[in-house]
Amino acid sequence: MQFLSDNAAAVHPAVWDALKAADAPDSPYDGDTLSHALDERFSAVFGRPCTALWVATGTAANCLALATMVPPHGGVVCHEEAHIEVDEGGAPGFYLHGAKLMLAQGEGAKLTPDAIGAVIDPIRDDVHQVQPHAISITQASEYGCSYRPDEIAAIAGVARKRGLGFHVDGARFANAVAFLDCAPGEAVGPADALSFGCIKNGAMSAEAIVFFDPALADVARYRRKRAGHLQSKGRFLAAQLHAMLDGDLWLANARHANDAAREIASACGERLMHPVEANELFVRCTSAERDALRRHGFGFYDWGEDAARFVTAWNTREDDARALARAIADL
Amino acid sequence: MQFLSDNAAAVHPAVWDALKAADAPDSPYDGDTLSHALDERFSAVFGRPCTALWVATGTAANCLALATMVPPHGGVVCHEEAHIEVDEGGAPGFYLHGAKLMLAQGEGAKLTPDAIGAVIDPIRDDVHQVQPHAISITQASEYGCSYRPDEIAAIAGVARKRGLGFHVDGARFANAVAFLDCAPGEAVGPADALSFGCIKNGAMSAEAIVFFDPALADVARYRRKRAGHLQSKGRFLAAQLHAMLDGDLWLANARHANDAAREIASACGERLMHPVEANELFVRCTSAERDALRRHGFGFYDWGEDAARFVTAWNTREDDARALARAIADL
Amino acid sequence: MQFLSDNAAAVHPAVWDALKAADAPDSPYDGDTLSHALDERFSAVFGRPCTALWVATGTAANCLALATMVPPHGGVVCHEEAHIEVDEGGAPGFYLHGAKLMLAQGEGAKLTPDAIGAVIDPIRDDVHQVQPHAISITQASEYGCSYRPDEIAAIAGVARKRGLGFHVDGARFANAVAFLDCAPGEAVGPADALSFGCIKNGAMSAEAIVFFDPALADVARYRRKRAGHLQSKGRFLAAQLHAMLDGDLWLANARHANDAAREIASACGERLMHPVEANELFVRCTSAERDALRRHGFGFYDWGEDAARFVTAWNTREDDARALARAIADL
Amino acid sequence: MQFLSDNAAAVHPAVWDALKAADAPDSPYDGDTLSHALDERFSAVFGRPCTALWVATGTAANCLALATMVPPHGGVVCHEEAHIEVDEGGAPGFYLHGAKLMLAQGEGAKLTPDAIGAVIDPIRDDVHQVQPHAISITQASEYGCSYRPDEIAAIAGVARKRGLGFHVDGARFANAVAFLDCAPGEAVGPADALSFGCIKNGAMSAEAIVFFDPALADVARYRRKRAGHLQSKGRFLAAQLHAMLDGDLWLANARHANDAAREIASACGERLMHPVEANELFVRCTSAERDALRRHGFGFYDWGEDAARFVTAWNTREDDARALARAIADL
Repeated sequence: MQFLSDNAAAVHPAVWDALKAADAPDSPYDGDTLSHALDERFSAVFGRPCTALWVATGTAANCLALATMVPPHGGVVCHEEAHIEVDEGGAPGFYLHGAKLMLAQGEGAKLTPDAIGAVIDPIRDDVHQVQPHAISITQASEYGCSYRPDEIAAIAGVARKRGLGFHVDGARFANAVAFLDCAPGEAVGPADALSFGCIKNGAMSAEAIVFFDPALADVARYRRKRAGHLQSKGRFLAAQLHAMLDGDLWLANARHANDAAREIASACGERLMHPVEANELFVRCTSAERDALRRHGFGFYDWGEDAARFVTAWNTREDDARALARAIADL
Repeated sequence: MQFLSDNAAAVHPAVWDALKAADAPDSPYDGDTLSHALDERFSAVFGRPCTALWVATGTAANCLALATMVPPHGGVVCHEEAHIEVDEGGAPGFYLHGAKLMLAQGEGAKLTPDAIGAVIDPIRDDVHQVQPHAISITQASEYGCSYRPDEIAAIAGVARKRGLGFHVDGARFANAVAFLDCAPGEAVGPADALSFGCIKNGAMSAEAIVFFDPALADVARYRRKRAGHLQSKGRFLAAQLHAMLDGDLWLANARHANDAAREIASACGERLMHPVEANELFVRCTSAERDALRRHGFGFYDWGEDAARFVTAWNTREDDARALARAIADL
Repeated sequence: MQFLSDNAAAVHPAVWDALKAADAPDSPYDGDTLSHALDERFSAVFGRPCTALWVATGTAANCLALATMVPPHGGVVCHEEAHIEVDEGGAPGFYLHGAKLMLAQGEGAKLTPDAIGAVIDPIRDDVHQVQPHAISITQASEYGCSYRPDEIAAIAGVARKRGLGFHVDGARFANAVAFLDCAPGEAVGPADALSFGCIKNGAMSAEAIVFFDPALADVARYRRKRAGHLQSKGRFLAAQLHAMLDGDLWLANARHANDAAREIASACGERLMHPVEANELFVRCTSAERDALRRHGFGFYDWGEDAARFVTAWNTREDDARALARAIADL
Repeated sequence: MQFLSDNAAAVHPAVWDALKAADAPDSPYDGDTLSHALDERFSAVFGRPCTALWVATGTAANCLALATMVPPHGGVVCHEEAHIEVDEGGAPGFYLHGAKLMLAQGEGAKLTPDAIGAVIDPIRDDVHQVQPHAISITQASEYGCSYRPDEIAAIAGVARKRGLGFHVDGARFANAVAFLDCAPGEAVGPADALSFGCIKNGAMSAEAIVFFDPALADVARYRRKRAGHLQSKGRFLAAQLHAMLDGDLWLANARHANDAAREIASACGERLMHPVEANELFVRCTSAERDALRRHGFGFYDWGEDAARFVTAWNTREDDARALARAIADL
């Protein structure tokens, strides 16, 4: 009963079907019919004109998006526990040619205008200090917390006022939208670009970078090729994205994962370190308690000394979630 | 009847089977069983210890390999028509942090010790000029010509003598080995790293970087993550590589493509611009002749004003190859 | 009797005076009075609004200028023998983050619209090939040839038409203006930035980057600091530039060097490989002839097997130039 | 009466003399006699074989030194208030090609083995997190605190044990040695490279990078040229370094500055935020008190809301220091 991560979960049957269907002759790279149709598909999802590019990883999505907004001598404000800072092996340093991540603090790994100001305000406007050029937030956050539309809007307001780009890392965007039960456009706000995650949500190897400014997408296309991320059989990546959007599979999958997380959360009470607003749970428990859970067959990561992280996925079995809830309740 | 390129050809059924079989729970990234088994598989192929990393594109394979050999202030000697120079959107400049490609000439897009010397010898050994740190050749070359083992050995000798790394871009390595009918190890010689192409040869989205020096692979692993090329469901890339090696599918597929190319070549006579030693044909023909071929339903690229490029693939139908041969003979 | 290069020549007395005069308390970096006054000084020289930044080397000047025009995924068209390609140790690759130099040919190391077209025209407008973003020419050229105002205008026309930046490497700009006997503004044309050389012309350690677009200068200021080129006692660099402009010392020095070159040229006849339009001479002569000249006490560089390069400077003694002329005539 | 900074102070007369004496013909770049003699000079200072390169700024010295130890995918542990993090406009990101600064805390802007461990120990040894490759400390620190030899040795022990490079930013190294009254070699410990500052201590535009491992210097030479920091009239930089070492001028100048700082410190009592172990004072005082000091003609920087920074220099007049001491005592 695995709750280690959603990042290696199985591929959804509908994605398999789409992959097989894509195995017909078509143009290489992103010249195929499926890739061409992505802009329209995502524009429909977000209710405004989008340009969508596929890439194979969230890291590439985040970094290619940011590279369109931030010059090598600039900086990106992000949370100190953001994935781009902590878990991408220095990829932003590579893609942004040495630009700086400017680390802000905030509950639940979420930024606020105040937290951003605390980082930006002390920066002297001179050449001795790196100047911010973009803000990047994660929806849902690294701790499974979702920004409300008004929170997004407030951050976007800071970005606009200061002339900064605004990027949303949506590795678990589907989970956020499913939790918020709002229009996708509200969950991303007036961002310039969104890393629209699919791999944690049932795809095999495709994420989308959704640009809300086509000029940024034009740059990203060159950067994607230059980064070795323009696959010659790109139709297989496009196909995965189409499958995720068809019939709102992305939302159905996310709802399933969120429901499982909520089921488990219901047994955690005071143990919860963060509100459960997506498909991740951070649960206080002793080493002995973790041992006990593992003896019952549950897989998960330790989170420091005194907690555990559980992640549900699109294919988490309801029985397993219920079993975990019971096991936690019994601790 | 497509002869445009092998880069968008269908995925081989055995690869599909392997992909489906890989859709079971396993560790993320390259921690899965299939990824772990790659070193042993490739060591068996090459008859010496190998460390093999999967990546999604040939561009990433080439650039990650070279990045382990060449410091940012160094240079790579390659043919002036090499893929890394002409067709990778400046990816080497990105991955090598501004290192320089040093362009050599040579028949059939192949390098020789003399051609390399003509580039290297005039370089003053001072800080004003970029110093070479590696040689990169393409096996088979951009013009479908294969280096003989003794040619490879001669170039490797130059590399060793000058203390340069030696990289082989093997986007069509299978075609070269099939043509040379030699051991794979002979076709790559004492290289430090080989980009082992599969995508043009029946895979969907996986190439291997085969390192013959494990220290280079250790560096490449960090660089791969940093480049956003460490896929979380890496087992699906490893599975493709295993499928290609199983029963020497890679050689069978390449032989098929080479046979089709030879069939067509037999009709080209003096029209051939280069010997056909893999699965590509460069054929002199007028614009009118190209129009005629296209009217007969053949797809291919113009090659400048006075020639056409035809590429066969693992799934080129023998009838199509024969039809093209006839059509060319009839011009 | 040194004709090796102008790059290590003595410092002009007026520059020494200016340096000493600058040794009074003032603000650090470029906050001092002398640095502030540079924009106005250069605007007067060029007859249009300029923003001028000091740096310590021509390499830094060229690369900082180009970095404002060319994104990391772009390219710069320059002559295949341009200083940025041949003699700067790969600095453009560093400063431009891996952007590509696109090498054109041309007599006397000068570009022409046709030569530029021959490089640019074959580039497919797709992401697989690096796209040009700027043109860089050298005034006077590496072979001591000066672009006439109409030649500059023609190249600028290409740049404008194609939307490319236009940079002029003026390491020996003074020599070109002195030769052309035109307004400085005509010798640089409608460039976006000029590397205005002083070190070869009597300064100790200061060049100017003259930006004709203030937005580019704003970027360059950040890049200069980031490259470690913002000296804290910048007033000593500014002072050198002021000294060079005072009373048109830069032109007087260049005229002196050009005169010496012309004196020598008058004895060279058919031996000259290029017209002498600045302060450099490329002279055909055998190895034995070079030996003879060296025995007479003349210092210079061999230029390949069959030629020698002589460079005059602001402090070349007329007697030495005459002696060299005689010695060449006597060969 | 300026106590703003030592970074724009006047040039010492002995440096002027050395500059003038260097204005004789010699080889360009670092081929001149003075540049050649630097290794021997610094070897004598440090009592072990050194290779010394001149550069024009401390930023360039720090970054070129670190670039020899840290690959683009690596990290550098430094204090969160280190100059390389706070005041160099992102230069480490540029020179190290996106490598990461890993920020540690510590009193007086000094690192300790524990503080370093707190940063390094939690880093998982996998490709998802940037791995440390070097430690950089500042001697004296940003707050004017000097590491004792045993403190340096302890940090060097951490570096050696973990296989990390060890760099010392010695922008004010002279002040530290003067304060510690120890051999220079003890004040730098078994570092791999030292940025040996001169500009704040009486030079015009020259710092030394002292390498204790010649292999690192070989790399730095290429990187220096590539960064546009190889000046053609390099003899003028070498001359400044010689002048600083002649008769231990560097120590005499530093002692003078330290004495002035101690004089002022004697009046500060509880106001001192850090011990005064070099030439900087950080003094608690209200806005009104700062106004009063400024009315008395003292120049200095505010340090946050409730403090001021005073910096003495080699040429601070004793009367001025005494006057400032009195004025502070009178507050």
